[in-house]
Amino acid sequence: MELLIALVIQCLSLLILFSTTSLSLNPHHNIPRPRPLSSSSVSDSTAAYVTTGYYRQTLDHFNYAPQSYATFSQRYMVNSQYWGGAQSNFPIFAYLGAEIAIDNDITNAVFLLDVANRFNALLVYIEHRFYGESVPFGTQADALKNETLRGYFNSAQALADYAEVLIYIKNAYRAQNSPIVVVGGSYGGMLAAWFRLKYPHIALGALASSAPLLYFDDITPQNGYYDVVTKDFRSVSESCVETIKESWSKISEYANQTNGGLYNLSRKFNLCKNLTSPQELTYYLHKMYADAAQYDNPPYYPVKRVCGGIDGAPQGSDILDRIHAGVVAYNNGVKSCYEISGLNTTASPGEGNINYGYAWQRCSEMVMPLAQGNDSMFEPFPFNLQKYSQDCIDTYGISPRPHWVTTYYGGHDFNLVLKDFGSNIIFSNGLRDPYSIGGVLKNISDTLVAVYTQNGAHVLDLFGEYASPPIWLTEQRETEVKIIQSWINKYYADLQGLKK
Amino acid sequence: MELLIALVIQCLSLLILFSTTSLSLNPHHNIPRPRPLSSSSVSDSTAAYVTTGYYRQTLDHFNYAPQSYATFSQRYMVNSQYWGGAQSNFPIFAYLGAEIAIDNDITNAVFLLDVANRFNALLVYIEHRFYGESVPFGTQADALKNETLRGYFNSAQALADYAEVLIYIKNAYRAQNSPIVVVGGSYGGMLAAWFRLKYPHIALGALASSAPLLYFDDITPQNGYYDVVTKDFRSVSESCVETIKESWSKISEYANQTNGGLYNLSRKFNLCKNLTSPQELTYYLHKMYADAAQYDNPPYYPVKRVCGGIDGAPQGSDILDRIHAGVVAYNNGVKSCYEISGLNTTASPGEGNINYGYAWQRCSEMVMPLAQGNDSMFEPFPFNLQKYSQDCIDTYGISPRPHWVTTYYGGHDFNLVLKDFGSNIIFSNGLRDPYSIGGVLKNISDTLVAVYTQNGAHVLDLFGEYASPPIWLTEQRETEVKIIQSWINKYYADLQGLKK
Repeated sequence: MELLIALVIQCLSLLILFSTTSLSLNPHHNIPRPRPLSSSSVSDSTAAYVTTGYYRQTLDHFNYAPQSYATFSQRYMVNSQYWGGAQSNFPIFAYLGAEIAIDNDITNAVFLLDVANRFNALLVYIEHRFYGESVPFGTQADALKNETLRGYFNSAQALADYAEVLIYIKNAYRAQNSPIVVVGGSYGGMLAAWFRLKYPHIALGALASSAPLLYFDDITPQNGYYDVVTKDFRSVSESCVETIKESWSKISEYANQTNGGLYNLSRKFNLCKNLTSPQELTYYLHKMYADAAQYDNPPYYPVKRVCGGIDGAPQGSDILDRIHAGVVAYNNGVKSCYEISGLNTTASPGEGNINYGYAWQRCSEMVMPLAQGNDSMFEPFPFNLQKYSQDCIDTYGISPRPHWVTTYYGGHDFNLVLKDFGSNIIFSNGLRDPYSIGGVLKNISDTLVAVYTQNGAHVLDLFGEYASPPIWLTEQRETEVKIIQSWINKYYADLQGLKK
Repeated sequence: MELLIALVIQCLSLLILFSTTSLSLNPHHNIPRPRPLSSSSVSDSTAAYVTTGYYRQTLDHFNYAPQSYATFSQRYMVNSQYWGGAQSNFPIFAYLGAEIAIDNDITNAVFLLDVANRFNALLVYIEHRFYGESVPFGTQADALKNETLRGYFNSAQALADYAEVLIYIKNAYRAQNSPIVVVGGSYGGMLAAWFRLKYPHIALGALASSAPLLYFDDITPQNGYYDVVTKDFRSVSESCVETIKESWSKISEYANQTNGGLYNLSRKFNLCKNLTSPQELTYYLHKMYADAAQYDNPPYYPVKRVCGGIDGAPQGSDILDRIHAGVVAYNNGVKSCYEISGLNTTASPGEGNINYGYAWQRCSEMVMPLAQGNDSMFEPFPFNLQKYSQDCIDTYGISPRPHWVTTYYGGHDFNLVLKDFGSNIIFSNGLRDPYSIGGVLKNISDTLVAVYTQNGAHVLDLFGEYASPPIWLTEQRETEVKIIQSWINKYYADLQGLKK
């Protein structure tokens, strides 16, 4: 049995490391992007105000060898639809791109349009280096194959990029006294918070949505993520959790039947292609449960859906029939058959590239130690740094630096350190998001504040678009607007006092 | 005449760029180190408590290419003479090395011994990369010839080094809850202030002595440095300033006499070697006046000495005789002859290396635009960024990045930015120090404070050692101790409140 688990672990981690899809399984967990919640894109009326620019960006900000001076084109987009102009120092909201092409985010981050409208703000969206069109010297695939070039692909360089672009934008718009508020979600949320901490002279404040910036080193218990997934499911149905818990050994048993077990398992789950290993199914289910929890969004609340399927299976269904019913419910109804490789089934446009890039980031600096504990509905799965590192060495020829994030950005004793240092960051979270466990959930000071909802999930405040949003989401957003307004008001008062 | 000035400029700037001595002339001004104020070194009783360690430091913190993982030995020294131990969380004072071998500074920074004694503190001195014994892969000269290797020689990398060493020291001494206060002077003072701003999770506070961190970009008027030199001289004697002012053209005239002008000039100044150009003399005098002002220290106050010589020259002396009398006075009496090349005449041990390294830093990121204005006692000399850059290209093959310091560390609107961001930095200055004009001379907030003296000069609070120090110096130091005590007291209270 232990050997089997070891094999599963081995197989899963290989699958994950080499995956170029949006599949994101433990323990080398990716930070999946929110799926677009509606099919609407930037409306035509908005599109007319959006311009795209390219900044000639320095390859290496922290080195003065001749090769560091190489430059690449970094893409940014500006929406001036609501801009009140620089004369009155109207604010600039800068969306810091993360592990996705920026034109995806400009579509998804609907909250910013509302914010810009209220503040008469200029909206700037800056693409993260090595994503989208901002890849130095060619395609992302080529850049990532080049062991020298990919070395420049990291968060500190990205923050310095943002600093340069924002200084440039301020000059271009003659908006030297316009306050800048940086905004980001998930990995981008970490970037936003870190940017305010590292570059307070450029950003007045940050809205860091669903930023698990404390899920590094030993700050957050490693089991946290999957414990929250389990809690989400338990809050809907205790029996659902028990069924899932029991299913893992049943899948193994079923697959190991001497009499065509894998074939029978494939039929039981009505799969389009027959399984070549039980791990393919395990992998699919892991991702489904984690995604359901992470994006447990209105109006459908996928956790409820899945458990509805599992608990509502016909009388007499065995455990695997129930799990299959959960899959059917998650997919919102019976399909002729189910794709479980996950390849390109649920990925948003461009997501294929995303995780290819983020796999590198995970193997260099973004080492989030995710494990499955004994109390979760998943099989126990410890975090093994040695193995994690070895996989990275095998893939990229380098070891990750697991302590660099906390060395450069901090994280230990976060409250003690920031109680009297720093200001103007909103750490927003939805507590159903398993990553919220690695976020900031308590106010640190009057201006380093936690704004969370019990019912929200991952980056919902930025991305959630609804004809009639739930009242708690509207309230969260209103709170965020009010807080940002207070920073800006104070800034204007200080500006008047000090600049005179 | 204009052509002559142009030639002088060309010649001076070449001399300065290639100088491997401590000579530090405008406008590519070095930040000279304070000369040791006494000949005493670390006493034998202290030496017994000082241990030297070497940390295996990462070559490139901001890159993940294989070559970035190379390591070098970084030297640090620990003085545990006054250390009260980690059990009671006694503090650690970390001296951040600057452009000199660390064993020089451990001797010179006498104030720290007193501070450690009072706080029962551990003293840690960390050498700056590429200085002293902390040069990657060989000698500084070799490292600086290597265009790839010297690329890693910059302040951001140095700060990251300090972060790693300090985390290591805390672990080694099991002193996780001991607060760290970083300390530095001049360039090291900038590093200390910047370290607190960038790494607040590692340093509780900073004592930044004589740190001209606002002397970048267009923040401080370019003429500032030499205007303060002039003011220092004027405060002693208006006629002295007038004599110096008139001397520059007299030197040219004298040197240009058809009848052995340079030889006569050499005799007039009683030089050991004959001049090969008038610029050699100009260069020497520039340095003498600037040094006199920058280190206008008790008990002798060199500005007073120089002007005493100039004003006190025998009745009937001409202007150049008077200047010569100033030189004699500066050198504290008549010598058989005067060395004016400056090579190794006044340099402290190791200083030969210092400026060789700092010349690179000046040509990469430390671009301080120093000019001589019309109101100074020096000949007008504008700052010419284009020429400055061209000289760096000619020497090192790269252009400086003159805006990087303000991009990464800030500086513009310093008060506005930090009014409600950051805490626990003492910006200490002596107003006779010409670099003080680029320092922080006003309190920014309750905990970002300016502590200066009217009579003090460059880094006097850290380095000045006197049997009976002037009362204003003692007061400045007491103020600094009290402020640091308040940070530490607050930290202990917070620690007790939050850690419980």
